[in-house]
Amino acid sequence: MTTIGVIGATGYSGAVCAGLALRHPSLRLAFVTSDKAAGEPAAERLGVPGCTLRFAPHDEARKLAASVDVVVLATAAETSAALAPALLAESRALVVDLSGAFRLEAPAYPQRYGFSHPAPSLLDSAHYGLPELFGSPAPGTRLIANPGCYASAALLALAPLFGAGLASTTTDRVVIDGKSGISGAGRRADEAYSFVELAEEVRAYKIGAHQHTPEIARHLARASSSAARRVIFTPHLVPLRRGLVVTAYVDAKSGVKTEDVRAAYATAYEGKPLVRVTSPDRVTVHGVAGSALAAVGGQVDDGVIVAVCALDNLLKGAASQAIQNVNLALGLPETAGLETLLPFAP
Amino acid sequence: MTTIGVIGATGYSGAVCAGLALRHPSLRLAFVTSDKAAGEPAAERLGVPGCTLRFAPHDEARKLAASVDVVVLATAAETSAALAPALLAESRALVVDLSGAFRLEAPAYPQRYGFSHPAPSLLDSAHYGLPELFGSPAPGTRLIANPGCYASAALLALAPLFGAGLASTTTDRVVIDGKSGISGAGRRADEAYSFVELAEEVRAYKIGAHQHTPEIARHLARASSSAARRVIFTPHLVPLRRGLVVTAYVDAKSGVKTEDVRAAYATAYEGKPLVRVTSPDRVTVHGVAGSALAAVGGQVDDGVIVAVCALDNLLKGAASQAIQNVNLALGLPETAGLETLLPFAP
Amino acid sequence: MTTIGVIGATGYSGAVCAGLALRHPSLRLAFVTSDKAAGEPAAERLGVPGCTLRFAPHDEARKLAASVDVVVLATAAETSAALAPALLAESRALVVDLSGAFRLEAPAYPQRYGFSHPAPSLLDSAHYGLPELFGSPAPGTRLIANPGCYASAALLALAPLFGAGLASTTTDRVVIDGKSGISGAGRRADEAYSFVELAEEVRAYKIGAHQHTPEIARHLARASSSAARRVIFTPHLVPLRRGLVVTAYVDAKSGVKTEDVRAAYATAYEGKPLVRVTSPDRVTVHGVAGSALAAVGGQVDDGVIVAVCALDNLLKGAASQAIQNVNLALGLPETAGLETLLPFAP
Amino acid sequence: MTTIGVIGATGYSGAVCAGLALRHPSLRLAFVTSDKAAGEPAAERLGVPGCTLRFAPHDEARKLAASVDVVVLATAAETSAALAPALLAESRALVVDLSGAFRLEAPAYPQRYGFSHPAPSLLDSAHYGLPELFGSPAPGTRLIANPGCYASAALLALAPLFGAGLASTTTDRVVIDGKSGISGAGRRADEAYSFVELAEEVRAYKIGAHQHTPEIARHLARASSSAARRVIFTPHLVPLRRGLVVTAYVDAKSGVKTEDVRAAYATAYEGKPLVRVTSPDRVTVHGVAGSALAAVGGQVDDGVIVAVCALDNLLKGAASQAIQNVNLALGLPETAGLETLLPFAP
Repeated sequence: MTTIGVIGATGYSGAVCAGLALRHPSLRLAFVTSDKAAGEPAAERLGVPGCTLRFAPHDEARKLAASVDVVVLATAAETSAALAPALLAESRALVVDLSGAFRLEAPAYPQRYGFSHPAPSLLDSAHYGLPELFGSPAPGTRLIANPGCYASAALLALAPLFGAGLASTTTDRVVIDGKSGISGAGRRADEAYSFVELAEEVRAYKIGAHQHTPEIARHLARASSSAARRVIFTPHLVPLRRGLVVTAYVDAKSGVKTEDVRAAYATAYEGKPLVRVTSPDRVTVHGVAGSALAAVGGQVDDGVIVAVCALDNLLKGAASQAIQNVNLALGLPETAGLETLLPFAP
Repeated sequence: MTTIGVIGATGYSGAVCAGLALRHPSLRLAFVTSDKAAGEPAAERLGVPGCTLRFAPHDEARKLAASVDVVVLATAAETSAALAPALLAESRALVVDLSGAFRLEAPAYPQRYGFSHPAPSLLDSAHYGLPELFGSPAPGTRLIANPGCYASAALLALAPLFGAGLASTTTDRVVIDGKSGISGAGRRADEAYSFVELAEEVRAYKIGAHQHTPEIARHLARASSSAARRVIFTPHLVPLRRGLVVTAYVDAKSGVKTEDVRAAYATAYEGKPLVRVTSPDRVTVHGVAGSALAAVGGQVDDGVIVAVCALDNLLKGAASQAIQNVNLALGLPETAGLETLLPFAP
Repeated sequence: MTTIGVIGATGYSGAVCAGLALRHPSLRLAFVTSDKAAGEPAAERLGVPGCTLRFAPHDEARKLAASVDVVVLATAAETSAALAPALLAESRALVVDLSGAFRLEAPAYPQRYGFSHPAPSLLDSAHYGLPELFGSPAPGTRLIANPGCYASAALLALAPLFGAGLASTTTDRVVIDGKSGISGAGRRADEAYSFVELAEEVRAYKIGAHQHTPEIARHLARASSSAARRVIFTPHLVPLRRGLVVTAYVDAKSGVKTEDVRAAYATAYEGKPLVRVTSPDRVTVHGVAGSALAAVGGQVDDGVIVAVCALDNLLKGAASQAIQNVNLALGLPETAGLETLLPFAP
Repeated sequence: MTTIGVIGATGYSGAVCAGLALRHPSLRLAFVTSDKAAGEPAAERLGVPGCTLRFAPHDEARKLAASVDVVVLATAAETSAALAPALLAESRALVVDLSGAFRLEAPAYPQRYGFSHPAPSLLDSAHYGLPELFGSPAPGTRLIANPGCYASAALLALAPLFGAGLASTTTDRVVIDGKSGISGAGRRADEAYSFVELAEEVRAYKIGAHQHTPEIARHLARASSSAARRVIFTPHLVPLRRGLVVTAYVDAKSGVKTEDVRAAYATAYEGKPLVRVTSPDRVTVHGVAGSALAAVGGQVDDGVIVAVCALDNLLKGAASQAIQNVNLALGLPETAGLETLLPFAP
C-alpha cells in the first residue's frame, strides 16, 4: 500500500480527497491535518464512519509528511507556495497541490493571489495535472499542480477545438461563461454565502478578475501552440451545492460544422475513461456530480462554436483529479478508487 | 403622517419592516439605524430604490427615537430588554419589539435567552401582539411584544382548538413539529448556515430547548384558560429562504370530527383578514410567503387533531405583524400597507 | 376605471398579470379565462384572496373581449396569432400579447414557432413593447407585442452599447449567455421539469435554436441602426423559480473603457424608473425578483464588453411589462400599480 | 456470480437498484426492463457509462426472470401483486419487491392501494426486509417485501424504544411527522411536482391517509409485542431531491431519561453496520444521502421521547436495502456492494 497524507483536510476539497484515499484499493490514508479540528476524530467530518484517524494540527504537517509516499496539499495558495518547497526538500513524497500556487507564471501571483511567489523556479517544473490533455507526470515528478475547477472544465472544452484547428485565426479571443455551485468557493463563514443570500439567486462575480483566467490562458497555449488567446472569463454563482458548467464561445474557422466539433472531441478523448463526449444539451450537472467524470460537447451556431463542459468541482475539479494524478504517477490504473463514484442522480 | 423609526434595520426582519414602513400610506419612515451599515444609503439594503435615508449608527438610536411616534426594535433580545425601558422613559413613542425580550415571564430568561431580565415589571404590561388572538393594544399601550415566528404559527393553529373545547382533557401535552426556512435564523456569517451546508438538508435543532417553547406555552394558556399544557416543540431547518410550517398534534376529545376543527377555525378567524382558513393539505408556504397572511387548517386523524399553520417568518412572523400591530394601535385599518403583499408564487 | 381581461389566466404569466390588474389603482379586472379551470373561483389560483371572479372557459374569450378596454393574451403563440386578428376586428380593445406571435418577421415563424403566420401584416404594425427602448405606443395602437423575457434582458443590456457606438465594427456578432429560472418554461406537467430533475442541475438547452434569438436580432437592429449582428444565444436552465440573468459579450471599439459603458447605460436609462443601472457584479436575481425592475451593468474585460442584465421573467419579462405598456398606452403613470412590487429578498 | 434482473428499471428506485447491482462484487446484472425505454441502451439512464445492457420491454419480464437467481420488482404495487406470484411459480428466483404489494394485511389494500389483493396468502409468508429489526430471511425464503422509505425510518426510530420498554403504557398512540425529498414520489410528469411548484415550498400531504401508516403499525406491533399503537403519521414534502427525516413522538414511561433512549438504540443497533446511532440533532440528510446508512437518535423532552431518523429514500429506503436483503439471503456480507456509497456531502 502506498501511504498518503492530506494537509488541510477539513476544507471541502481536502475532506473529499481524504475520503477518496480511505476507499482507494491501493492507498492507505496515513494522516490528515486541520487546525480547526485538531485532535478530533476524522470519521464524521470525512463522512467515512469506519475511519479511526484523528486530525493532527497543521504544525505537525511537515513532520508527518516525512513518512509518507504522497502528500496532498489542500491549503490556501499562499500556504501551499511556502509549504511545498519545504516538503520537497525534507521528504521523498510526491506533492500534489490543490491550490493555485503552482499553476501560473510568477508575475501573475501578486495580482491574482495577492502574494509574490516564494519559489518561482518550481512553477516550470511542476506538472500541471490535467491528464486528458497533459498526460501522466514524467518519471521523477515530485510536484503536481492540480488544476482549478473552472480551468479544468474550460481546458477540456477548448483544447481539442484548437488542437483540431477548428478555431478562426482572424480573432484572438475566447469567451468563457462559467456557472458554478457554491462549494467552489470553499467552506465559508460569510453572510454572502449563506443559504438565504444564495438560494433563488444567480449573479456574476470577479468579472475580469478571476484567478482562473490566466490559468486557462497559460495552459490553453501549452495545449495547442496556436492557441494564444485573450481569455474573457465571467464566472457566475448558481444555487447548486456541487457541480459547474462552462459554456465557451469560439469563432469557428469558415466551414467548420458541428460534426467537426464532435469529431475533435471524440478523437481527443478516445480512451480517456473520465471524459464523456456527448451532445452539448446532454452535458449536465446531474450527469457528473458525485462522479470523477467530465462531460463535454459542442456545436456550431452561426459561425461560433458553442462548447459546454460540466464536472463536479470537488471531484474532477479537485479531489478525484488529484487521485487520478496520483494513480498515474504511481503506475496504477487511472481510475483506481474512482470507478464507484457514479453520478448522484436523480 | 405618523413617523416611525427602525432600530437594527439591516437584519432581515428590521430591513423588511423598514421596507413596509416606506410603502405604508400613513407612515413616514423617519430613521433607520445599523452599526454595520452606519452612514450608508439605505435604499439598496432595504430593496426600495427611491429611499433617501442613510443608516444612522446604533448609538444615536435613543436620540432619534425621541422625535418619532413609533419605534420598532429589531435588535437582539438582550439589547431590546435594555433599550426598551430607556425609550419608554425618554420618548413618547410606541415601542414595538421584534425580539423575545418581552414575551416570557422573568424566570425563563436566563435559560432561554442567556440573561437575567433587567425590567421584569414590563413583562406583564407589554401587549403580546398576536391580533387575531389578543386583539388591539389597549389605549395607552406603550410597549408591544411582537410574537416569535414559530409561536405565531403554533398559537394560530392551537388556540381555537382549545377555545372550542376540542382537546382531550385526559392528556396534558401538545406536540408541535416546526419546519422553518433559513431566514428564521437571522443574518448569519456562519459556516453552518452556508448554502452548501443547508441545501438538500433537513435537520432538527434545539430539540427541547427552543426559546419559543415557553412563549407558546405561556400565551396558549392565556388564550384559553383550559390550555395549560406541556408543549413539546421540535423545530427543523428546511431548505427555504422564507416561510415556515408548524404541524401540531393534539389529542381530540372523544367524538371530535374534522368538521368541528374546521368550524372552530372558521369561528375564530371570521372577520380576520390576515388568517386564511383552508383544508390542511392546502396550507402551503407558497400560499403565504411574501404576504402578510397566515394559513390554517386541521383535521382529525384517528383521534388526534392534526393542525397545520403556514406563514412567512419575516412577515406574519415578524415585520408585517409589527405593522399590523402599529395599525391597530393607531386606529388605522388593520391591513393598511399590507394589502399589496400578495404571495410570491409561483 | 379601465376594464381589462386576461385570456389564459392559469399559466404563470397570465395569472401574475391578472393579479397585477386586480391590485392596479386604475384598472378593473373584468374577466379571466382558462380551459383547465373553467368555472372555478379565481382567488386561489391568482393568489388574491378577495377576488370574486371565476374563470370563464376559453371559448367565451372573444365575446368577453368585446366589452372591455384592454385584453391581455397569455396564450400560446399559435393561439395568439389566430386570436388577436379576431379581437382587433371584433372589439375596440387594446390587445397586449404576451406570446411571441407578433415579435418576429413572418419568415421566421415556421422554424421558430412551428406555424406559418396567419396575419403577417400585423407584424409590422404591432408595437414592440419594450418601453425603455421603444417608448410609448403611438396613439391609436391596437396591438402590443410584449417582449420575451430573455429578449427584454438582452436588449436592455445591448442596445445602449450599440447606441453609444461602443461596439467594434470589425466583428459582427454578439454572444449572449442566458440563465433562467424554471418558470420561464411555463407550467409544465413534464418529468423533465420536475423538481427532482432540475434541483442541483444546470444545463444548456435549445442551443442555436431558441425562438428569442431572431427576436433579439430583429429588435436590436431596430434599436440601433448600426447593430445588425449575428446573435449567438445560449440559454441555460438554473434551479430558480423566478428570475433570469443574461451575460452578453460584445467586442469593444478600441479604447472603450468601463466608464464609457456605465455612461452609456446612465444616459440610456436616465428617467426610466424601471431600469436600475449598477455595477455588473450587483446585477442579481435577488435585486429584481418579485419586482417590475430590470438591473443592468457592464464593464470592459480585455477588449470585450461584458454586459449583464437581470429581471424577473414573469414580471419585467412578461406581466409587469404588459401593465407598463398598458399604463403608457392609457396615459397613466408608467409605474402605476407596479410601485409596491419590491424585490422579494432576502 | 449471482445473476439478478430488475423489472421496472427506469423509475428512480429501480434505476438506482440496477446501478448498485452493476457495481456489486458478487452480482451480475442480467437484464433490466422498462416499457418507456424498451430497446434503449441502459448506460445513460442508469448513470453507469460502461453498462452494455439495453432495456427489455416489460412483457418479456417473466421470460427473462426464469433464467436468473434474483429478480427485483420496481413496479407499481398492483403490478407487483400480480407479477410476484407468477414469478414464484415460474422461476426459481428470489423475488424482492420494492412496492407496497406485500407489506400489509389483505384488508388494507383496497383503501390504501386501491385494489383487492390477488394473492393474500403471500402476505404472511413474505419476509419484511428490514434487516436491523427482522434479521435475515429464513432459508428457503422466496419473496421479500422491501419496506417503504418512511416505514423504514419510522420503524428504525420506534422499535427499539418499545423493545426496551421506554414507552408509556397509559397512552396508545405514536405521532410520526415525516419530511421527505421529492424523489419519494417517484418519477412524475405532473405539474404539482414541477420545480416551480416545489422549490421554496413545504406542505403536508395525505394527512391521515398515507399507505405507510398501516405498514408502520403492522410491523411495529410485530417488532415489539407491546407496541400495538394508533399511528398518527403526517408526511410533508420538502424541497430536497433525496433523503427523508422522520420525527417521532412517544410518551415516555415515568422516569425515562435521554440516556435510556440512547442506550436502547445502542443496544438495538450494536453490530448493525448500516445504522448509525448519534445524538438527534446530528441526524441529518447530509449524513446519509447517497449512502446505505440510516442515522437514528433521540432524547426526552418533558416526558416525551423525540426520536429522529434520517435515510436516503432511494437507498436505505429502497434500493440499497433491497441489495442488503439480497446479500443476507445469499449469505454474502451484509454490506457487500454498499460500502463505497458514502454520503454525498457537502
